[in-house]
Amino acid sequence: MTGKLIGVGTGPGDPELLTLKAVRAIGQADVVAYFAKRGNASNARAIVADLLKGKIEEPLHYPVTTEIARDHADYGSAIDSFYAEAAERIAVHLTAGRSVAVLSEGDPLFYGSYMHLHVRLSMRFDTDVIPGITAMSGCWSHAGLPLVQGDDILSVLPGTLGEAELARRLGDTDGAVIMKVGRNLPKIRRAIAQAGRLDAAIYVERGTMANGHSMKLADKQDDEAPYFALILVPGWTARP
Amino acid sequence: MTGKLIGVGTGPGDPELLTLKAVRAIGQADVVAYFAKRGNASNARAIVADLLKGKIEEPLHYPVTTEIARDHADYGSAIDSFYAEAAERIAVHLTAGRSVAVLSEGDPLFYGSYMHLHVRLSMRFDTDVIPGITAMSGCWSHAGLPLVQGDDILSVLPGTLGEAELARRLGDTDGAVIMKVGRNLPKIRRAIAQAGRLDAAIYVERGTMANGHSMKLADKQDDEAPYFALILVPGWTARP
Repeated sequence: MTGKLIGVGTGPGDPELLTLKAVRAIGQADVVAYFAKRGNASNARAIVADLLKGKIEEPLHYPVTTEIARDHADYGSAIDSFYAEAAERIAVHLTAGRSVAVLSEGDPLFYGSYMHLHVRLSMRFDTDVIPGITAMSGCWSHAGLPLVQGDDILSVLPGTLGEAELARRLGDTDGAVIMKVGRNLPKIRRAIAQAGRLDAAIYVERGTMANGHSMKLADKQDDEAPYFALILVPGWTARP
Repeated sequence: MTGKLIGVGTGPGDPELLTLKAVRAIGQADVVAYFAKRGNASNARAIVADLLKGKIEEPLHYPVTTEIARDHADYGSAIDSFYAEAAERIAVHLTAGRSVAVLSEGDPLFYGSYMHLHVRLSMRFDTDVIPGITAMSGCWSHAGLPLVQGDDILSVLPGTLGEAELARRLGDTDGAVIMKVGRNLPKIRRAIAQAGRLDAAIYVERGTMANGHSMKLADKQDDEAPYFALILVPGWTARP
């Protein structure tokens, strides 16, 4: 009997935003695996730290982060070999009959690293995916901002897009979530202003952490923003 | 002391997809409110039925559903008065110092009816919103379908859009989620085919229910689909 592979969404940070199903799956798993930057603790592991007593832990350390530029050919090949090796490490446990819970911040199949293991292992092993609260849900809930309603169109956009392309897409959607803010903040602000939507846009930092906060983007300085900050543009205007 | 208003996401259907925070909030609330069609049970209430012992329940019954066409002026005014009255019923409890948990299937601020209470009450009362697993997360997790990765753009589109508009947007995004399928299925299929994406599209019905299933859209007959079925178009192609 081989073990089961379980992709477990841990939600956006607050341990109380774990689902009952995630808590049960971690409790029943023999092995708990998680990705982390080399030299850093895993954020996903920190969320479930209280549940790990007696578990075999399998940290999967990215070999490259900022040392090689992302568009360099060596980056792609280093990352590809890393995911292949990580999948084989997990496969050893599964083949030996041990169930493996792979932690994924947010939701496993929504911009998550777990996807790279899923595509390599789900054909060979029994697999289950437990959805998690996404960072964007955590952020609009923290901000108390109704995002989309009825027949609204929502666009999830990376802040890495060019300014003109961002502005075009912001002019062609009802609601929008802009991710990967960080150093893209000044460009994103210009694109939102160009689309005529600056007044409604909300900036959210660490949405579900104790030190999280949100504010009107128009009031946020361009000085600095973390990579994982989000900008929300509501599609729906209240008619109370 | 007035009571607290809490928008509680109950997730997409499986009671195990409640968050720990949602369970605690319902446990601590004096009143549990939920929307339902007149004559129907509330889906959100069914998800948390085991937690309601001893609670004051406040069902909020929609006055109109299919009797009046949605584009008729009477529909808008009937719905507006309904939300205003529902908010006042909740306000009575809050003013009396009772905390009120308003259940919302999926996530409260993402296409949820709770939004209509939130905009009417959050300025007057202390408010908290607890995010929930969205129906779309439940569906792609059930299907085991990696949806978006890295710098992918995701579009959430209502199946009510016109065929040409749907096709245009499907040709201008990486991943897509199409909601409100129902009788729009034949049109949605034609739009997806026109955008050249039929082979990858997945149809999901009742994603987190015991009788849920998913299949390639190309294999799904046009005969019938529930309104809450979803179609997923992945933005990310695995390179294992």
